[in-house]
Amino acid sequence: MSMPLTQPSPEPLGVAMLQSSGQLRETKANGDLIEDAARRAADAGARLLITSEMFLTGYAIGDDVHRLAEPADGPSARRIAGIAAATGVAVAYGYPELGPSGEVYNSVRLVGPGGEPLANYRKSHLFGDFERAHFTPGDEPVVQAELHGTRIGLMICYDVEFPENVRAHALAGTDLLVVPTAQMHPYELVAETVVPVRAFESQLYVAYVNRIGTEGEFDFVGLSCLAGPDGVVRARAGRTEELLIADVDPAFLHTSRTANPYLRDRRPELYTSLTR
Amino acid sequence: MSMPLTQPSPEPLGVAMLQSSGQLRETKANGDLIEDAARRAADAGARLLITSEMFLTGYAIGDDVHRLAEPADGPSARRIAGIAAATGVAVAYGYPELGPSGEVYNSVRLVGPGGEPLANYRKSHLFGDFERAHFTPGDEPVVQAELHGTRIGLMICYDVEFPENVRAHALAGTDLLVVPTAQMHPYELVAETVVPVRAFESQLYVAYVNRIGTEGEFDFVGLSCLAGPDGVVRARAGRTEELLIADVDPAFLHTSRTANPYLRDRRPELYTSLTR
Repeated sequence: MSMPLTQPSPEPLGVAMLQSSGQLRETKANGDLIEDAARRAADAGARLLITSEMFLTGYAIGDDVHRLAEPADGPSARRIAGIAAATGVAVAYGYPELGPSGEVYNSVRLVGPGGEPLANYRKSHLFGDFERAHFTPGDEPVVQAELHGTRIGLMICYDVEFPENVRAHALAGTDLLVVPTAQMHPYELVAETVVPVRAFESQLYVAYVNRIGTEGEFDFVGLSCLAGPDGVVRARAGRTEELLIADVDPAFLHTSRTANPYLRDRRPELYTSLTR
Repeated sequence: MSMPLTQPSPEPLGVAMLQSSGQLRETKANGDLIEDAARRAADAGARLLITSEMFLTGYAIGDDVHRLAEPADGPSARRIAGIAAATGVAVAYGYPELGPSGEVYNSVRLVGPGGEPLANYRKSHLFGDFERAHFTPGDEPVVQAELHGTRIGLMICYDVEFPENVRAHALAGTDLLVVPTAQMHPYELVAETVVPVRAFESQLYVAYVNRIGTEGEFDFVGLSCLAGPDGVVRARAGRTEELLIADVDPAFLHTSRTANPYLRDRRPELYTSLTR
């Protein structure tokens, strides 16, 4: 019996992106939607389900952010762990996280296919007056976990518009950047071109999963996508509810990184003004 | 008599982009082309002419890079200063620069409308085997000059594909990033989407001026453009020779920066991995 000389490249990872806004303030109903989407993802062979930003409670819920926030291991977390374990599909979901001193973060949590907690990320770049009034920004720029041989990184909405954030993930080895978002008109440009460029310039996959419809003053634009390290979009949603499914291919990622050696050709000693 | 309380915003700056490869190894003929383009630019009301990368000598000229390289203030520089002074049009031109120890840089030089030297930049991120074999990389990341109230920054081709470089310019106050390039198939994506995203994410104008046609193994794709801080392309060339003209509008730049406060919302303390 001989040992293989090199690790086999992992199989493509099917990713299911739930472009939906769920129901505002209805945590139980939104849990039902996650359960339904996880079953459909499993049927389609996907092994990771991603929701939009703040999917568990809705985004434009004003002061209810505080009433509906839960700890990272709260009751909704336990329910979603059960859904993951029952379907074998890992779940990354957006929710308002209640911190230890009563502060609230805009967070995304990743639960593994056995229901195990894998990672929890707190949005570090808050957007606009609503978020600044209600959330405390996170201070950990790169949060990752391994899933089926693919290194998953977590980020939320406005975070991805800063190339520095995506670069930090690339330098830390992220293969698939998971980005729940609440992207609104007139910023279609972000979904359409900024996200694919992020994937290309930092040589990773980006899954950008948006809300739809109107909430208060916000008009969410959908256009969720999975962008590859060649800057090409693998799947793109419209502006209505959709479970978008596409593959992350580790073999292609390896090929693309060899052909586009941006990380090797960087000159960090010239970038010192960026951290001042 | 009263003094104005605020400085008036400068007038829009007309920019003429010479999408051309000139003639390989024919410095004199390429000077003639610059002279002709500067006259046409002046007639159109433009006040800055930009050429492609290495326009003075051609790009794929192999070892002739060393034979044809000139000091920043060499004979071609004196000729182009005369063209600028005669037409009143500032000129940014790409050329192989002979350094003090015989080393050669891939450079762009900016001459003011009176023929005065304003800035000289040496490409800091060399691309591929040809450039690494023939050029010494520059070590100064941000080179700027004021032109008619607009702060011009200089960069070359591959440099602009690194978001760190453009960010460093934005932090240093660059309004218009001038980027001579020699962008080839299959990297149309860079001209089409990376350049507009750079302009948007760092809130400045980018003038990207490419070569055309075939030189040795290289197939240059044209597609020169001026992209605005809203990520919208103001003018876009095809794949043939063209003098593309468009305006840089300082008033719009101010409005856009207020609406898209990326520089204010950055969190430099989270980006330290980028400089290691």
